[in-house]
Amino acid sequence: MTATNSEQESAVLVEQVGPIRRLIMNRPKSRNALSEEMMEALAKELDNANNDDATRVVVIAANGPVFCAGHNLKELTARRSDPDHGRHYFALIMRTCSTLMQAIVNMPKIVIAEVQGTATAAGLQLVATCDLAICVNESNFCTPGVNIGLFCSTPMVALTRAVPRKQAMEMLVTGEEIDAHTAKAYGIVNRVVPLEYLRLVVDKYATEIAQKSAHALKFGKETFYRQADMNLADAYDLTSLVMTENMLAADSEEGISAFLAKRSADWPSLK
Amino acid sequence: MTATNSEQESAVLVEQVGPIRRLIMNRPKSRNALSEEMMEALAKELDNANNDDATRVVVIAANGPVFCAGHNLKELTARRSDPDHGRHYFALIMRTCSTLMQAIVNMPKIVIAEVQGTATAAGLQLVATCDLAICVNESNFCTPGVNIGLFCSTPMVALTRAVPRKQAMEMLVTGEEIDAHTAKAYGIVNRVVPLEYLRLVVDKYATEIAQKSAHALKFGKETFYRQADMNLADAYDLTSLVMTENMLAADSEEGISAFLAKRSADWPSLK
Amino acid sequence: MTATNSEQESAVLVEQVGPIRRLIMNRPKSRNALSEEMMEALAKELDNANNDDATRVVVIAANGPVFCAGHNLKELTARRSDPDHGRHYFALIMRTCSTLMQAIVNMPKIVIAEVQGTATAAGLQLVATCDLAICVNESNFCTPGVNIGLFCSTPMVALTRAVPRKQAMEMLVTGEEIDAHTAKAYGIVNRVVPLEYLRLVVDKYATEIAQKSAHALKFGKETFYRQADMNLADAYDLTSLVMTENMLAADSEEGISAFLAKRSADWPSLK
Repeated sequence: MTATNSEQESAVLVEQVGPIRRLIMNRPKSRNALSEEMMEALAKELDNANNDDATRVVVIAANGPVFCAGHNLKELTARRSDPDHGRHYFALIMRTCSTLMQAIVNMPKIVIAEVQGTATAAGLQLVATCDLAICVNESNFCTPGVNIGLFCSTPMVALTRAVPRKQAMEMLVTGEEIDAHTAKAYGIVNRVVPLEYLRLVVDKYATEIAQKSAHALKFGKETFYRQADMNLADAYDLTSLVMTENMLAADSEEGISAFLAKRSADWPSLK
Repeated sequence: MTATNSEQESAVLVEQVGPIRRLIMNRPKSRNALSEEMMEALAKELDNANNDDATRVVVIAANGPVFCAGHNLKELTARRSDPDHGRHYFALIMRTCSTLMQAIVNMPKIVIAEVQGTATAAGLQLVATCDLAICVNESNFCTPGVNIGLFCSTPMVALTRAVPRKQAMEMLVTGEEIDAHTAKAYGIVNRVVPLEYLRLVVDKYATEIAQKSAHALKFGKETFYRQADMNLADAYDLTSLVMTENMLAADSEEGISAFLAKRSADWPSLK
Repeated sequence: MTATNSEQESAVLVEQVGPIRRLIMNRPKSRNALSEEMMEALAKELDNANNDDATRVVVIAANGPVFCAGHNLKELTARRSDPDHGRHYFALIMRTCSTLMQAIVNMPKIVIAEVQGTATAAGLQLVATCDLAICVNESNFCTPGVNIGLFCSTPMVALTRAVPRKQAMEMLVTGEEIDAHTAKAYGIVNRVVPLEYLRLVVDKYATEIAQKSAHALKFGKETFYRQADMNLADAYDLTSLVMTENMLAADSEEGISAFLAKRSADWPSLK
């Protein structure tokens, strides 16, 4: 285990264990709110992880009892005294946040949310945006913006793409918490585990995924989200092309040969 | 409690309790079918509710054992003797019904279905269309049009946006009833309660929602349905703008200030 | 019962019992892989079933312990020695497979998957593509392409239209099996039954559906998939028109009359 960034004060700590890079939100006192500093640090570290060849799976984790409490309201409120009452700043923050979320969707590596506690508003959005999410029995989730007059409109984009419509609407208009098992039933998380097993289970998923062909995962993740926004015929046109290209890649040649020969694959893309 | 319309014979009775307006379908003998009269009355009362500043949440309820049995088949059949065999009339009725359903989606106030019994065909569509729906243990649901040669095509629009694909298809091609708990599992309703608690629970939801910022709910509901039809990038572009405007509105300024000061919000939009 | 094709060696056996046509994949030794031969046979028999007036419901079943194991990897691999390294052939196979899947979606008759065992990769795609699917307690499902460097991109099109997003992603990036009851919870199948009841239950569904108006089913199935790719307003415009045409068809006139007279319908479309 190598801690590539152990500076205690960093907004996001980075730990690398083999091919798994863990980005740990590290502002427990401010409930890991998505402040400017936190979003900038996350965006930078996601980019670093993406550009690092040794990293094959990214985990977004957090220190403290709260995974992430959404936007930093104090930071936002302070800018109401700007000459434009904050318009420029609010727009910047919302764009920054939406860009951060889409960076997770658009990066080729799989991103897993390791949710050790509560996730609210844009914090829930972060969980819903990651490719996979695993939480603990004590986790709870809500979109409470409606309680402060600020409807969780950007979180809703991620929420409604994971959760059935009536259940998403109930969360958004009541602002009420749901527990971990309800979140699993709704489709927000993949699995609920005891806290003491959280890291173990996330590492098991990450290790397994890291053993796959990075080339196939890249092809697959990109296509997953692209085809989701297409009609059926277009989705099949796209994926038929993708499958053909994927077949022609060295990894699938090796993978299929290995499978037919009943041996382990030795991915060319990893050499 | 004030009954603003207590005329026994009205197709839709209207009850106002504080900010909650309850529209009660009142044709139990015809199973509250969506006759011309019923659709016109519902459309008018939804419009009235929307225009009434004192009303913040709308409940659609019904008298009798059936919530709503869908279209009025006798009324439709009678027009087969029209010179055009009913074409103009059928088109009018279908457009009227589709417009009614979209009025619920497009109005800024939250609409809750209070389902005290059976809901079939366009009656199920009405339940699936409301923002939230609460039913009783004895409720059951079906799309039986296929049994009479008239596939539930318009109900399908609402059904397939709430329910997973294979389950929706099964309901549509078999026409079979599902019970209340299956309807919850499928995503048609938010909650199943004993009949004697139905009104209590609906009022609890409605009261809670009525305490939120109407301004935030309006922003949020409109955006909820708009972004659902967009691709991810467009959805984020829209909601980022919406969040910025929402931040600049007086309600969010008050709501966030109240939250940071740990006091209750006093919404400017309610004054 | 008439076996219209009892040639043991056919890739797809055809059994007709009344209005139910059962297409039985018959390459158990190659796990009913979607070889060129199998896809060609399925496409031909689906077309035949579609054109046969006596056939009202189609069942896709299989012999052996595996329902369908997806593409035939040996057949694909053999073409790597083509001058173009297989590009033309791979593209042809992927297009053929996508066309086959869309043929099921686009044909007016209801297609039920009778899943007696395992379904993987494009075999799972076939299950997810059928209008309805019933499997056995022992069935399991996976999209293991990622393990051989060939991400299940075309299967993903069908999978993601049936299954919530995070659950679909987990299947695709881990390649792990899910059991029958998980598949039901995810929305891949409609029902899980003991193996000894499988045919009985499928026949019950098929028989019930075969008694409906074929005209209404044709209207309905076509519209089901078309409106699913539309925004709400367009979906209502389309279905309002479809309902009007459906009302004017002879089957709905008979069906509604029969319903109002409390007698069984005698569909004109069946005469």
